Amino acid sequence: MLLLSKDDIRRVFSMTDAIRADKEAFRLFSAGQCKVPLRTQIKAPKYDGTFLFMPAYIPALDYSVEKIVNIFPRNSGKNIPTAPAQVLLIDGTNGMIAAILDGMYLTQLRTGAASGAAFDLLARRECRKGTVIGTGSQAAAQVEAMLTVRILEQIHVFDRNPRRAEQFAQQMRASFPYFSGRIVASSSVQDAVCDADLLITVTSAETPVFDGTLVKAGATVSCVGAYQPRMQEMDPRLLCRASKIYFDSQEAVLAEAGDIIIPLREGIITENDFTGELGEVVAGTIPARESENEIIVFKTVGIAAQDLVTAMRIYDKSVAAGIGTQWL
Amino acid sequence: MLLLSKDDIRRVFSMTDAIRADKEAFRLFSAGQCKVPLRTQIKAPKYDGTFLFMPAYIPALDYSVEKIVNIFPRNSGKNIPTAPAQVLLIDGTNGMIAAILDGMYLTQLRTGAASGAAFDLLARRECRKGTVIGTGSQAAAQVEAMLTVRILEQIHVFDRNPRRAEQFAQQMRASFPYFSGRIVASSSVQDAVCDADLLITVTSAETPVFDGTLVKAGATVSCVGAYQPRMQEMDPRLLCRASKIYFDSQEAVLAEAGDIIIPLREGIITENDFTGELGEVVAGTIPARESENEIIVFKTVGIAAQDLVTAMRIYDKSVAAGIGTQWL
Repeated sequence: MLLLSKDDIRRVFSMTDAIRADKEAFRLFSAGQCKVPLRTQIKAPKYDGTFLFMPAYIPALDYSVEKIVNIFPRNSGKNIPTAPAQVLLIDGTNGMIAAILDGMYLTQLRTGAASGAAFDLLARRECRKGTVIGTGSQAAAQVEAMLTVRILEQIHVFDRNPRRAEQFAQQMRASFPYFSGRIVASSSVQDAVCDADLLITVTSAETPVFDGTLVKAGATVSCVGAYQPRMQEMDPRLLCRASKIYFDSQEAVLAEAGDIIIPLREGIITENDFTGELGEVVAGTIPARESENEIIVFKTVGIAAQDLVTAMRIYDKSVAAGIGTQWL
Repeated sequence: MLLLSKDDIRRVFSMTDAIRADKEAFRLFSAGQCKVPLRTQIKAPKYDGTFLFMPAYIPALDYSVEKIVNIFPRNSGKNIPTAPAQVLLIDGTNGMIAAILDGMYLTQLRTGAASGAAFDLLARRECRKGTVIGTGSQAAAQVEAMLTVRILEQIHVFDRNPRRAEQFAQQMRASFPYFSGRIVASSSVQDAVCDADLLITVTSAETPVFDGTLVKAGATVSCVGAYQPRMQEMDPRLLCRASKIYFDSQEAVLAEAGDIIIPLREGIITENDFTGELGEVVAGTIPARESENEIIVFKTVGIAAQDLVTAMRIYDKSVAAGIGTQWL
């Protein structure tokens, strides 16, 4: 069994690799090639915690995966993560556990890569300004995904807390020294959203975090937060202005994402407004962007197929490079 | 995260420890203190395989566990196990994975310990002959459990294949040099069963493997095989002769074990013949053996509570002894 830490993964696996893995995952998922049983959830009310067990299997790849994520908000401030996670990769030909991978880092990678895949497939070729709203644990990989797929002049980051935005911008400048553009903290969300060609929302907001009428024609927006029915970060007016709306998994989005569930319930949009899944774009069975002026929205909640393909590709590269800790 | 191999576990954890853990597990389970969601099963028909994910949580112990067992019969002869397994122990106070333990060895231990716990609680004080029918991967721990709880003069082992029985007897003599009695291969199942005070069946048979009328008065029988509805290793006549019938989990036995399901369906026994669960005996809420001449039957299919308590106790002892491989 190969044990792969965050450092191990960083040594062999780039955001470009992660975006390629996500595209493959979305394509297989939308083609019905991923078996995903209902996830198992056990509550630990005494500690306000939840254990989540999420297995999946892709016969075409001969791998099965399980992600274990345990949500313990009270860990905050104790120097341990609030959602510790591990991913087990299982050889589908013989049932042996092939690898255990740092599940938090893998989740950040594949979640960033979802926006990267969407922008690569749906955004205009020429983009100058990218904006990220939210500076939590998923935000860094979102910035990296953005600058991996388009040559940008500037990246704006916004957080309700200006000091956090400034710290995050500084951290991003240090993390991506090869990025030749500017990374700046916006003092207002209007400034951040205006003129953005690429826009990512990655917050835990329960009310919209920006004015949808400010989004410019031709923009591509990836909504990464709002992974529960009561959560909403996107202004529904943006959905009305969008000419195309894509999902990672339509079924999962309609079950989990307030960003879509709430406007649907309120009659602001209907299912006829949905274009389809990103995996169908990868497969070429539905169109991507058709004009420079379209506003395009991608809503992702994250699917197990991403964990599986990403884990498998990391494993393959680690074995080839002799990276990781072998146990037994 | 602490990684515990079979060798690590053997260094710190004895069959006596395992029997103590199983008793605690059965008690907590029968007291309704174990949360066990339905296990998740994914089929891999291309390889005749099945992935099984079995989580459980005991709030009173502040641990959650997941056992992953992948059943791949075609691994046979390839020098890899046909049911590779790992057990993840999760800290219930913060959701961090505390340990990964060799799941095959842990399963052997806790399955042997179930018979050990049953014999310790239900068998006559004075026993001379113990018999094990079946010599597969679970059999060695069954022998060890038997000789841990009673001072025996002889242990008989039987297998349909006489050469396997002889090899297994030899292996058991080498494994338990401190056992002062004799370990012999029986050439006939009648010889093996006659006069046995303790009798264990641990086969994958689909028809009864011995004549129930041969079991002597006062014997205690633990039935470990027959973990599927179509499987049957126990002669139903034994159930008619038994004055007490115990289970690890009545619900699980009635869902899974042909040994009980088939005679129940055929009207040979009724639910009124069931005495209760072993955990109730541990708790003192139902009686154990009440006379020297009773025949007592214990049917076990194995429950997640055993995996959890055993994993936790192994982990505690390993940490105290500084045993295992620390990763991250």
